[in-house]
Amino acid sequence: MTMKPLKSLISLEEARKLLLDAARPIERTEEVLLLQAGGRVIAQGVVAGIDVPPFPRAAMDGYAVRAEDTFGAGDLRPVELPLIGVIHAGEEGREEVKKGTCIQVATGAPMPLGANAVVKVEDTELFGDKVRVYKPVHPGANLAPAGEDIRKGAEMLQPGSYLTPSKVGVLAALGISRLRVYARPSVAVIPSGSEVVEPGKSLGPGRIYDINSYTLAALIQENGGLPRVFPIMADEVVGLREALVEALAFDLVVISGGSSVGERDLLASVLDGMGEVIFHGIAVKPGKPTLLALVEGKPVLGMPGYPTSCLTNGYGLLVPMLRKMARLPDGEREPLRVPLARRVTSTIGRHQFLPVKLLKGQAVPVFKESGAITSMADADGYIEIPANVDLLERGEVVEVKLF
Amino acid sequence: MTMKPLKSLISLEEARKLLLDAARPIERTEEVLLLQAGGRVIAQGVVAGIDVPPFPRAAMDGYAVRAEDTFGAGDLRPVELPLIGVIHAGEEGREEVKKGTCIQVATGAPMPLGANAVVKVEDTELFGDKVRVYKPVHPGANLAPAGEDIRKGAEMLQPGSYLTPSKVGVLAALGISRLRVYARPSVAVIPSGSEVVEPGKSLGPGRIYDINSYTLAALIQENGGLPRVFPIMADEVVGLREALVEALAFDLVVISGGSSVGERDLLASVLDGMGEVIFHGIAVKPGKPTLLALVEGKPVLGMPGYPTSCLTNGYGLLVPMLRKMARLPDGEREPLRVPLARRVTSTIGRHQFLPVKLLKGQAVPVFKESGAITSMADADGYIEIPANVDLLERGEVVEVKLF
Repeated sequence: MTMKPLKSLISLEEARKLLLDAARPIERTEEVLLLQAGGRVIAQGVVAGIDVPPFPRAAMDGYAVRAEDTFGAGDLRPVELPLIGVIHAGEEGREEVKKGTCIQVATGAPMPLGANAVVKVEDTELFGDKVRVYKPVHPGANLAPAGEDIRKGAEMLQPGSYLTPSKVGVLAALGISRLRVYARPSVAVIPSGSEVVEPGKSLGPGRIYDINSYTLAALIQENGGLPRVFPIMADEVVGLREALVEALAFDLVVISGGSSVGERDLLASVLDGMGEVIFHGIAVKPGKPTLLALVEGKPVLGMPGYPTSCLTNGYGLLVPMLRKMARLPDGEREPLRVPLARRVTSTIGRHQFLPVKLLKGQAVPVFKESGAITSMADADGYIEIPANVDLLERGEVVEVKLF
Repeated sequence: MTMKPLKSLISLEEARKLLLDAARPIERTEEVLLLQAGGRVIAQGVVAGIDVPPFPRAAMDGYAVRAEDTFGAGDLRPVELPLIGVIHAGEEGREEVKKGTCIQVATGAPMPLGANAVVKVEDTELFGDKVRVYKPVHPGANLAPAGEDIRKGAEMLQPGSYLTPSKVGVLAALGISRLRVYARPSVAVIPSGSEVVEPGKSLGPGRIYDINSYTLAALIQENGGLPRVFPIMADEVVGLREALVEALAFDLVVISGGSSVGERDLLASVLDGMGEVIFHGIAVKPGKPTLLALVEGKPVLGMPGYPTSCLTNGYGLLVPMLRKMARLPDGEREPLRVPLARRVTSTIGRHQFLPVKLLKGQAVPVFKESGAITSMADADGYIEIPANVDLLERGEVVEVKLF
């Protein structure tokens, strides 16, 4: 097993394929309350255990009747039906509508036996204990038969369905209050770099604050993962190996940083000793020094140290991988199609991620340099320039992927 | 103060305006760790306390030089500079590059005094303790001056900024590990209806499971609110009033259900006694029996009892209101523009929300009836048909708002 030197870059497409191959959908499940199930992915099939509604019910406020009794009714020739009872929503409704009578029903009330339609209250008038019906109804009018919405025995949800509010509603309708969902992928985020200091601590000379662990953790959380940020790892073999061994308890390992060639090489060689380096270097700008390894079957992603490189790769590579593991829908929003505010050049052979800001309906490039977090913070999204394009003219319509 | 009868419906536009007027952005704040700040809204201004980077640093692996010493260097006529030291990232770098010498630097290492450029390692060759430089560099080449990304004293974030991963990165870059964010709006969700039973409990005759509290809670959570579902409220004055008094401790009160005219009227009259009913009835389909009241300054939203009506109103009315309270960006995704799979009629004077499924690049209407939760669960999104439109032809391009 040999390590690819950084100089032989692989294409972004190839990298994406290898990353998705390495991303295994989570098999672990956990039980949650229905109230906490929104946004999760169900891990069980759901077959309707009941009809919904469970009984035929009135769909309007009015009077339950035998439809035949209303045939021929009109504004000038109302049909008069003795009112023999009333059923509210939530009541049992054991009464029976006998020929030529009616029972008052509220919306949602169970239909009494014998009745096969509801006359809306607006089409009636009450005189003492008699109801005058001014409009005929056909059998089935203004009622919902049992099982109209969901039929008992129907397959309602397959394992792997993403639980939108309405799918949560389907579970509620069936009376399900607990369910199994797939666990969220746990992600170890390991900051590395001897110059890096945790925010909140004091900054010694030659030191900078750790940015990447925080941007990555936020991105991971936003995309269904559970990030855990490790202590900052010194760039030396023993420390690297120890941190990696601990991190293998997680579903995915992301190492942020090591921007110098020496640090990157150290990481690559440690990973090569522990598992298999799948690739090391992508023809993408920014974000070239990106690495994927498999250690004991776990994907280990080495991200570039520069904040913009790290975060654009986060959006372009880590997010699709993580969402596949989390079994989430791809989550890509429709890109916004707007004209470019100025001409942009790109390097042939390198796929470019270019952060842009939206201003007056145009995409304004805001990339400063890979080391600048403000390149990203000032941006509303990014455009991608394929490896075979070297120039985008001002005014050309581009697709902005919004953050 | 008089109550509008349900028959005088207000337009959807007017309802939206009144709802947004009633929604006050949250003033309460809380402190969070930076690692938990993604997706929150910052409640403090942030002025950079340091330069980022805090010191001039090498942007490449190579040699720190005085640029002047490299002028005239070429492939055939390299300049030879004695190597007098090495600075790794994270080191202090007190050495000084004197005229005609160089110091080895790693990416991210602080620039030594005296040097004003970095020669990339690829453009050099090391011979013993001498470095041969094959390419000249201009002053400033391959280094990042102090404050290049963020200048000390710059206003970086205003209160009210939404914390994307990159804005979290800006805070990290400045060393900020705790910050104040606006509290999430708390939302009391009160299920009502005497026929309604909590999922997980057994269903008596004439009863159905509570759907709306669960769909609303999921939607509220998805949009930055903290839902708390109350016990199911019986439809009687004392119970209603007690639940409402308790609910006024929350930022927003949503009452789901009461689908019958009697239940709706009861709610409206109780609210009218406690505060002001702003409107009761919207010219929208489904979702007409929607009510807004203000009680002690708190908005109380009465939602229709039918699950589809309740949830379409949730998307169309509650979400914009809640996001305004939570100070979140509007969150509307770009609608998808696709042709309609079949002709759709609508009632003039009623704005219609129509759930649709995407099939073969077309929008297929899936609305069954307002009582059916499956109308929504089978849909990928919805289209809106304005009140003045009564017909959409098959093939007409519509804008689908995706869930």
